[in-house]
Amino acid sequence: MTTQAIGYIDSGIGGITVAREALRQLPHEVVYYVGDTARMPYGPRPTEEVLAYTWEMVDFLVKKDIKMLVIACNTATAAALPDLRAKLDIPVIGVIAPGVRGALRATKNKRIGVIATAGTVKSQAYAKALEHKDGAVVVSQLACPEFVQIVENNQSDSAAATAVISDKLAYFADKDIDTLVLGCTHFPLLDQTIAKVMGENVALVNSGAVAIENVSAMLDELNISNPASIDRSKDEYYTTGDAAAFHTLASRWLNDDNLNVQHLAMTTTGLKLEN
Amino acid sequence: MTTQAIGYIDSGIGGITVAREALRQLPHEVVYYVGDTARMPYGPRPTEEVLAYTWEMVDFLVKKDIKMLVIACNTATAAALPDLRAKLDIPVIGVIAPGVRGALRATKNKRIGVIATAGTVKSQAYAKALEHKDGAVVVSQLACPEFVQIVENNQSDSAAATAVISDKLAYFADKDIDTLVLGCTHFPLLDQTIAKVMGENVALVNSGAVAIENVSAMLDELNISNPASIDRSKDEYYTTGDAAAFHTLASRWLNDDNLNVQHLAMTTTGLKLEN
Repeated sequence: MTTQAIGYIDSGIGGITVAREALRQLPHEVVYYVGDTARMPYGPRPTEEVLAYTWEMVDFLVKKDIKMLVIACNTATAAALPDLRAKLDIPVIGVIAPGVRGALRATKNKRIGVIATAGTVKSQAYAKALEHKDGAVVVSQLACPEFVQIVENNQSDSAAATAVISDKLAYFADKDIDTLVLGCTHFPLLDQTIAKVMGENVALVNSGAVAIENVSAMLDELNISNPASIDRSKDEYYTTGDAAAFHTLASRWLNDDNLNVQHLAMTTTGLKLEN
Repeated sequence: MTTQAIGYIDSGIGGITVAREALRQLPHEVVYYVGDTARMPYGPRPTEEVLAYTWEMVDFLVKKDIKMLVIACNTATAAALPDLRAKLDIPVIGVIAPGVRGALRATKNKRIGVIATAGTVKSQAYAKALEHKDGAVVVSQLACPEFVQIVENNQSDSAAATAVISDKLAYFADKDIDTLVLGCTHFPLLDQTIAKVMGENVALVNSGAVAIENVSAMLDELNISNPASIDRSKDEYYTTGDAAAFHTLASRWLNDDNLNVQHLAMTTTGLKLEN
């Protein structure tokens, strides 16, 4: 079981920041990634629809014999984690609980900010989980869908992006937070700008990075780590959208021009490789 | 099962830094702590002896119906973790694997330093586990038993302590590390001095803090978190050594004068409360 891949699923390309952490923290582990780019964003969709789309990605990966599944998307984690855990016989890791744990590890004053998509903020998933673990925390949440657009449009480094981020995060000026959870997997791609705006006294929590630490712990507990280093050509990336566009963004974020990206067709019997 | 305590064991008082992280990150969880102060340090003892002493502490806590066990001591983790995991039907968390994961999450240049007791350095536990997960890491280890003495003698803030720490850590001057694992549970009590000596470009990894994040993950996975806040008077601290001396140090480190500390007698049938 040790040499099998770990599967990653996301509504699109944001989960690549989680895969990036996997490549960094767990370089011996093979990455299979599916991004449902054609049907993104998941945020505004009904939960039942998100659940159904998520299962399509999962079914594709399970047939490829993955040893563990990472839901590299906050919306899909909120909608599908319990169902996937109940029905799959491999470990399933989401990104919300790790973000919560990372925030509780980082905070000293127990005042925690969360930035996420509108859907994730509305679900109260972070606020509920934080308060479940510590009744004394004060959580301030802010929906920042604009940040997703900045990333998707490949404008992370623009002056306009900095202005938008600075304007939005002014919301936290009077909240006295010492910790800010990046509650959307797109946001680590803006972490330098966010860090500059928030100042050095606010710790940023990358939920995906903590999730990969969680994956690492699970590999330890089950004793299924791949002990030897691997060739990155074993990794496989799939998208329901345009493979070339996915390749452009993912290559940039992973700093690797040789990614193997393939298109998946959406059929009535699930996601299928096109031949 | 949710309201039961989590048990912590250590060769003495260093594990209090792990309990401190538990109080901070998991304030809803009851702490039962046993420190085998009378027989510390464990570092120079044969593995079989460390294993036997560790089991005495575990047997005492298991009778008190704990829901999870944390081995808050690097030496005991190296000696006893596999045996405890195999024989107990509650989850068991050590401090070495979390330290390894925390280091791999923190490092960018893959050059990692580890400071620990002589026993832990000699066991190569950190180096082996780091290299198992990432064949590209370069690990520099240094035994710092003097640091344990500084803490035990309550001299953490002295100028002499700073001089000793500065002298010892000069070892890393030409190692180009960007991450330093505090591989002994005493060392977080010296973290400010160590941080100042190492400089802002070296991230310190508190193994105990990551271990508590691991405990938090396990509570999530098994759905056994205590959902309500608790009165800290439920916590219980035990020592095989002098209860008053233990109380003095632990109270200071936990910033709580009302700790309930009791002495345990070492008998031929295990550790027993004295009446």
